[in-house]
Amino acid sequence: MNIPDIPYLKSPDQAAFRDHLETKVAHWLRQWDGEETLVAGIVGVPLSKPSISLSGASTTPAAVRAAFKSFTTYSMEYGVDLQHMAVRDLGDIQMHVTDIAECHRRIEESLRALYRAQPHMIPIIFGGDHSTSCPSLKAFADRHPGKKVGILHFDAHHDVRNFEDGGVTNGTPFRGILESGVVEGRHIVQIGIRGFMNAKPYHDYITSSGVHVYTSRDVRRMGIDAVLDQALQLAGDGTDVIYVSFDVDVIDQAYAPGCPAIGTGGMNPWDALDALYRLGALPQVQGLDFVCIDPTVDVRNVTSRLAVQFMLSFLAGLAIRPV
Amino acid sequence: MNIPDIPYLKSPDQAAFRDHLETKVAHWLRQWDGEETLVAGIVGVPLSKPSISLSGASTTPAAVRAAFKSFTTYSMEYGVDLQHMAVRDLGDIQMHVTDIAECHRRIEESLRALYRAQPHMIPIIFGGDHSTSCPSLKAFADRHPGKKVGILHFDAHHDVRNFEDGGVTNGTPFRGILESGVVEGRHIVQIGIRGFMNAKPYHDYITSSGVHVYTSRDVRRMGIDAVLDQALQLAGDGTDVIYVSFDVDVIDQAYAPGCPAIGTGGMNPWDALDALYRLGALPQVQGLDFVCIDPTVDVRNVTSRLAVQFMLSFLAGLAIRPV
Amino acid sequence: MNIPDIPYLKSPDQAAFRDHLETKVAHWLRQWDGEETLVAGIVGVPLSKPSISLSGASTTPAAVRAAFKSFTTYSMEYGVDLQHMAVRDLGDIQMHVTDIAECHRRIEESLRALYRAQPHMIPIIFGGDHSTSCPSLKAFADRHPGKKVGILHFDAHHDVRNFEDGGVTNGTPFRGILESGVVEGRHIVQIGIRGFMNAKPYHDYITSSGVHVYTSRDVRRMGIDAVLDQALQLAGDGTDVIYVSFDVDVIDQAYAPGCPAIGTGGMNPWDALDALYRLGALPQVQGLDFVCIDPTVDVRNVTSRLAVQFMLSFLAGLAIRPV
Amino acid sequence: MNIPDIPYLKSPDQAAFRDHLETKVAHWLRQWDGEETLVAGIVGVPLSKPSISLSGASTTPAAVRAAFKSFTTYSMEYGVDLQHMAVRDLGDIQMHVTDIAECHRRIEESLRALYRAQPHMIPIIFGGDHSTSCPSLKAFADRHPGKKVGILHFDAHHDVRNFEDGGVTNGTPFRGILESGVVEGRHIVQIGIRGFMNAKPYHDYITSSGVHVYTSRDVRRMGIDAVLDQALQLAGDGTDVIYVSFDVDVIDQAYAPGCPAIGTGGMNPWDALDALYRLGALPQVQGLDFVCIDPTVDVRNVTSRLAVQFMLSFLAGLAIRPV
Amino acid sequence: MNIPDIPYLKSPDQAAFRDHLETKVAHWLRQWDGEETLVAGIVGVPLSKPSISLSGASTTPAAVRAAFKSFTTYSMEYGVDLQHMAVRDLGDIQMHVTDIAECHRRIEESLRALYRAQPHMIPIIFGGDHSTSCPSLKAFADRHPGKKVGILHFDAHHDVRNFEDGGVTNGTPFRGILESGVVEGRHIVQIGIRGFMNAKPYHDYITSSGVHVYTSRDVRRMGIDAVLDQALQLAGDGTDVIYVSFDVDVIDQAYAPGCPAIGTGGMNPWDALDALYRLGALPQVQGLDFVCIDPTVDVRNVTSRLAVQFMLSFLAGLAIRPV
Amino acid sequence: MNIPDIPYLKSPDQAAFRDHLETKVAHWLRQWDGEETLVAGIVGVPLSKPSISLSGASTTPAAVRAAFKSFTTYSMEYGVDLQHMAVRDLGDIQMHVTDIAECHRRIEESLRALYRAQPHMIPIIFGGDHSTSCPSLKAFADRHPGKKVGILHFDAHHDVRNFEDGGVTNGTPFRGILESGVVEGRHIVQIGIRGFMNAKPYHDYITSSGVHVYTSRDVRRMGIDAVLDQALQLAGDGTDVIYVSFDVDVIDQAYAPGCPAIGTGGMNPWDALDALYRLGALPQVQGLDFVCIDPTVDVRNVTSRLAVQFMLSFLAGLAIRPV
Repeated sequence: MNIPDIPYLKSPDQAAFRDHLETKVAHWLRQWDGEETLVAGIVGVPLSKPSISLSGASTTPAAVRAAFKSFTTYSMEYGVDLQHMAVRDLGDIQMHVTDIAECHRRIEESLRALYRAQPHMIPIIFGGDHSTSCPSLKAFADRHPGKKVGILHFDAHHDVRNFEDGGVTNGTPFRGILESGVVEGRHIVQIGIRGFMNAKPYHDYITSSGVHVYTSRDVRRMGIDAVLDQALQLAGDGTDVIYVSFDVDVIDQAYAPGCPAIGTGGMNPWDALDALYRLGALPQVQGLDFVCIDPTVDVRNVTSRLAVQFMLSFLAGLAIRPV
Repeated sequence: MNIPDIPYLKSPDQAAFRDHLETKVAHWLRQWDGEETLVAGIVGVPLSKPSISLSGASTTPAAVRAAFKSFTTYSMEYGVDLQHMAVRDLGDIQMHVTDIAECHRRIEESLRALYRAQPHMIPIIFGGDHSTSCPSLKAFADRHPGKKVGILHFDAHHDVRNFEDGGVTNGTPFRGILESGVVEGRHIVQIGIRGFMNAKPYHDYITSSGVHVYTSRDVRRMGIDAVLDQALQLAGDGTDVIYVSFDVDVIDQAYAPGCPAIGTGGMNPWDALDALYRLGALPQVQGLDFVCIDPTVDVRNVTSRLAVQFMLSFLAGLAIRPV
Repeated sequence: MNIPDIPYLKSPDQAAFRDHLETKVAHWLRQWDGEETLVAGIVGVPLSKPSISLSGASTTPAAVRAAFKSFTTYSMEYGVDLQHMAVRDLGDIQMHVTDIAECHRRIEESLRALYRAQPHMIPIIFGGDHSTSCPSLKAFADRHPGKKVGILHFDAHHDVRNFEDGGVTNGTPFRGILESGVVEGRHIVQIGIRGFMNAKPYHDYITSSGVHVYTSRDVRRMGIDAVLDQALQLAGDGTDVIYVSFDVDVIDQAYAPGCPAIGTGGMNPWDALDALYRLGALPQVQGLDFVCIDPTVDVRNVTSRLAVQFMLSFLAGLAIRPV
Repeated sequence: MNIPDIPYLKSPDQAAFRDHLETKVAHWLRQWDGEETLVAGIVGVPLSKPSISLSGASTTPAAVRAAFKSFTTYSMEYGVDLQHMAVRDLGDIQMHVTDIAECHRRIEESLRALYRAQPHMIPIIFGGDHSTSCPSLKAFADRHPGKKVGILHFDAHHDVRNFEDGGVTNGTPFRGILESGVVEGRHIVQIGIRGFMNAKPYHDYITSSGVHVYTSRDVRRMGIDAVLDQALQLAGDGTDVIYVSFDVDVIDQAYAPGCPAIGTGGMNPWDALDALYRLGALPQVQGLDFVCIDPTVDVRNVTSRLAVQFMLSFLAGLAIRPV
Repeated sequence: MNIPDIPYLKSPDQAAFRDHLETKVAHWLRQWDGEETLVAGIVGVPLSKPSISLSGASTTPAAVRAAFKSFTTYSMEYGVDLQHMAVRDLGDIQMHVTDIAECHRRIEESLRALYRAQPHMIPIIFGGDHSTSCPSLKAFADRHPGKKVGILHFDAHHDVRNFEDGGVTNGTPFRGILESGVVEGRHIVQIGIRGFMNAKPYHDYITSSGVHVYTSRDVRRMGIDAVLDQALQLAGDGTDVIYVSFDVDVIDQAYAPGCPAIGTGGMNPWDALDALYRLGALPQVQGLDFVCIDPTVDVRNVTSRLAVQFMLSFLAGLAIRPV
Repeated sequence: MNIPDIPYLKSPDQAAFRDHLETKVAHWLRQWDGEETLVAGIVGVPLSKPSISLSGASTTPAAVRAAFKSFTTYSMEYGVDLQHMAVRDLGDIQMHVTDIAECHRRIEESLRALYRAQPHMIPIIFGGDHSTSCPSLKAFADRHPGKKVGILHFDAHHDVRNFEDGGVTNGTPFRGILESGVVEGRHIVQIGIRGFMNAKPYHDYITSSGVHVYTSRDVRRMGIDAVLDQALQLAGDGTDVIYVSFDVDVIDQAYAPGCPAIGTGGMNPWDALDALYRLGALPQVQGLDFVCIDPTVDVRNVTSRLAVQFMLSFLAGLAIRPV
């Protein structure tokens, strides 16, 4: 709305201050028109009812979009301006209010259809809780028929709880992935796993499944570069594409207080920014999700901001990815 | 966005829960198309830099719009459904970032143009701080040439500070109105003024200007109905149209904590709801503003919600206004 | 734990200050032993995943229990000391983490069994969201075979949404009750319903179902005593027992900020205290629930405290109930 | 500091906005010079270590003083401007850090000396917790040799706990006063006492001591005027002077959330404002304290603001007290 | 409570979700039975009235216990599962409400008795403020007759204030220890002391007493391993047992905001985790306390969580301690 | 006030605890008497109305002064006690309430006069938003006639927005400095600039103006010492004096949450403490400002505390500056 004969009266968005030389991420990541061929696409999955403890992770897509206006498209640190990269906001997958199994089914069905419509688009999925990663990976694996999928899983937790005690929850996605056989254990690398936040039977399950584990202490002692060197070799060994699942609670609570299961001793954000830039530049990496942010318990939205900056680092890497 | 072959993937608004039998205020008060003839129109004035103390009142229009989704268009208490009333959101008047006098000039110029474009529309203006009411009233008075304007001013404060100490601020709108002569003192009634929140010289100025005052204690002791009976007679005596300026700090701090200058001993919200319904039904009332909400210091957005409910009560009255 | 030869070292509860002449509600409402015959029993239903909007109502039982230590068993206002009344805390009904329909089934099954075990115990149920009231009422009705049940429903909302849009939610309990036929519409009285918080089709549905409605404005204008006189006559007309379902959002947001759907214009707590005392004393009233408190958005736990005080008023009435 | 040749550079207080026609309470209630003869004097007692539960009441004097800048000296509601009344801020009584008994001794000693120095000054004491009222009353009684003292005690609690369980605490001041014999039970009236906030043995003790009790429900049902009529007759019967001890938790938690022991069903602030004005005007009333505000758990300082407004109402009454 | 014929109705604890393969710290650190011989025991000292500034450190034991449910007993980072280690929660030492000297006396008396009852148990004491460490060390020293005690004191502050200004406070424990002669200065090493947080006379006192100091800047520049190498040599030189007193404000305010005296430039939590693991493994270390957390000013309980993780690191070290 | 014959009654400041051996920064940095010759002086500029987004930076001087009581004058880390250094608090520059251009004019005029009155005093200016640095630098440059000025600018942002879109704002100070020619681009070094927080046209403007840039990532990778080596060489090359402008948002959001434009990936406080100490010791550095703290959105005042510690590090360097 911008009625010429009524000066200054504008829609709220247009009436707000704008620097005409500046492109905000919010200006760039506009809503997909349903037709444009995309390099990458943002998908929201506003689902946290599967969470074991009370979680407001369903509000993450909204909180993350709200933070788009706080950042520009340009980084002199990486020497890149993203504003002409074909990345759009595809919206949210509509959840059922009370049927949680149906929600998971919808995620898988919707992503399968999306991948058919946009065969080369890299999905950047904002959960929701971690339960969303299992249907996401099933759709992802199916997109690459005849190919092996590797996973880099950043998390403080193994996420392989049993199904008997609570069903399919935010604690079970990697149990679901391993049991479904959609990805083999030896192609999965977990990074940032923390002591005193996991039960021994699940660590045993993980290692007996062939999954590789780098703890948060390993990251601190080896350095993120060395960890990533090894992890990429392991996850890439015999696979064709890699999916990155990033549970934000892998970051220390001082930097990411807005997660349901917080604690100290975690990774720092500088390492994560560097890792995601490197992963963005790597052609095998074809999918990425960020999960388990709870904006309702955050402080000044710092955790959603951090997730947006992580995404931007990944996209900065993507911008220099060899064609 | 609603791509048919990608099931469930929708724009965030469409993906959210909606009850198909329910009309929210947010559905009804959609953006004006610039052409539709309106019964009433919402205008935001995101300006609080004139405030003497630090104020986030510039965020009120956004906070109020955000609360539109919390209410429906129907009231069985008043027996009315507003969803077919021609009321729209006209957007915000764009403010200058650093030139405060220019902001006031824009308010007046924009409203003048709006009133020419929509000669019968009742403006419902959400400030901003109270400094916005002075240019608003100038535009309003000019809209009714040859007619006298009366004002009902709900406020804890007289708002007639001198101009020497700080210029044109949120403390001076009624000084500005009186000195400009746009409305005569005897046509102004202040309701809800509170003790120990105003200086004696300003009370003296008010009474010597012929302005009528009902304190918060008067409202409590006489009842809102009796106060309104007298106030309407006074403001309506010799005038043709009435403008209502509602500073939300007239309400007790327990009910409206999100105002810059709070205190106890104020009016309660039930009286305000009743008063606004009655004013809505009165044909002489042709303009309304709500000012001095500061959403940044509010608790759970209760003050913005309350303002929306006040507006709805007014519109419910308007719905039964005789034609 | 209280090891005699280690002075002062005690379990945390025992080490805390205690006035030996004072009985706190927390001391009195201790855990049921599974055998004692009870006059009334507290049951927690920690379920809020059926809620349409994000709700932490599942934490209400814990928050309410935590507030038990803030009150004593004695009221000189009602002249009663409750400490010898056989009321106990029966614990919580265990919810399934991810199967919401199963949760509702468990509520009904558990309460049926409880009612068989304690045929004369008055249940005082703390939700959870309002979806819990439908299975609760089914179990309650079944407890009184061949008898008609009346309902007094305190709420800002009708709670009769359609089932198509989201399934069985916190917005549908009275739709469920009416459609199941477990209680007839003419035996239901809704008190405190508020304008601009309900859709017209649902108000039409309510009135066409024969349900009686007193709005919040009615309570303010008629007085709570007169409303209750009429409501009890209506709900009691042709019924044998009455169930009271109390959605705390019936109270104005200034007094009960810790509810998901808050607003002004609601009932005040003094009226509610008086009403619940009166209902406690009425022999027909055989069941009571409090729902839709969200302690995670509350301020200083005031809403949970208020719910405890409502419960105590009811029990004070129960203490003088004729045998 | 105001260096003429450095324009605009001023002490922080002087650099802040000031309306030259307005006198704030902060301007008026300046620090006592140690000599001026006062009508009334503000004394802070920053002590809350005697409190049974964790309390930040020791910060009340600072919080109350900070609120002085939010109010003016003039009330058109009472028709009075206080700015020439000889009231000053006498500062705080210095507490010992770790010797609580010494703190109580200092309060009594300091007030005794103050009363000798200012024989006609009415003390307005801001606690601190309620334990401060016992030494305060001892000094007060001693100031009026040969005269009987009556007490009006506004509180949700009787405050007559036994001394065995915790010593001299915020729960024992009226036990201390009664046992010391400094005031007789029949000269004490407690107003606003609430059910389920006191133990029966203490209510029995109170009544057997001859103390008169008006509950919060009595205030609601009889009206504050009628309660005060009776209370003044009882407290004034056979006494010469009256001391008012005002525990702010007598006010409902919606209006005074910043108290340690909050709850609903309390008095509203309008009644308190009226009562304190009336007490201010009554020549027998010669002392006043406000206790048990905890600014560290308050919301936007509303409880400290309310206390300041209560004080101002009292002083407005004092302004019309017959000489 | 788990009544078989009432399905799903359970005590609140049992009704909550539990993964049957997971052992939480809360399951493991259950209440001591008064008989079991322990390797280590948790003791709470809920005392903060000696604090100079307002402190809620008395709520630390409760906050720390509440965080026990957020962690498991297993750490793959250290390769240890603690669930069979004989560590129990011994409860709290009961404080007097108003006699602070008596509180300190009780701490010493209670710990002396406990040490007699459990001659080989390592105490892990959660204050309370730092004043609790002085009586704790007296009891500790007395437990090792004829042996010299060394102290590793992690803190931003020297804690050797004079006794004249406020008595025995949270600022004086090491003054008390040095003056009592219970430990010699040369056997004490302070680590993490920070500039601009201590007065020069106290630094002079410390150095003249022979105490060794490593500042926070030293830790940053030398590395925690080197600091610990030297510190253990100094504290261990000529001593038989070492007590570790850990004031959590040694950690930078970004990681431990919930302490009374916060600031930047402090230690990071990774260094502390490593240090405590190493100290846990060292046979000389026979006592440990954590003090000066104030949960009432914390953010999302991060500081209590951090303290629990520090304790778990220490216990992981203890698990590999040579016998 | 300290009336001898009224024991313990003192002014609030005097009644508070004080350790007679300890000098707090608040005791030392007392108000300037207008005459004393100063080594350094604190000036507050309470202005944030030029800010593009809502900012409470105008409250920084008050928040920073409030934090003075949390620190002492002595640092054993730097081996210095500042209490005899001639540094005083000069107060605030009085702002106009509504004329923003006048505010900037006053800053320049006031500082010019101050520099004439105190020719050798190093100003330490607390904004206010960054718009205050432009008039500050004009006054600073004018103080050194015939000399070249270099600038070290710590910031996440270039701060060279165009003037067309909003006038002179917190986003334009370095545009203003460069366009006015007061400092040449080649004499300016920006440190800590971050990616995705600046628009490319402004980075291009900066580099084409000859300004040198070290990003936050450069600081992390090169180390603060190496960055500072180069920066000082660049800013010092051909200049005589250096001004340091420190926008606190250069620090990562985990350490400085109380800034308007926060994000992760920023500098850490340890590097800043070291840098400021080094700059303090460097004779060329003759001016320093800290800007863009917003205490109204801070957490426990950590950002104001951090700014005070930064200032103290600078002054500790100044203490060892060669004469």
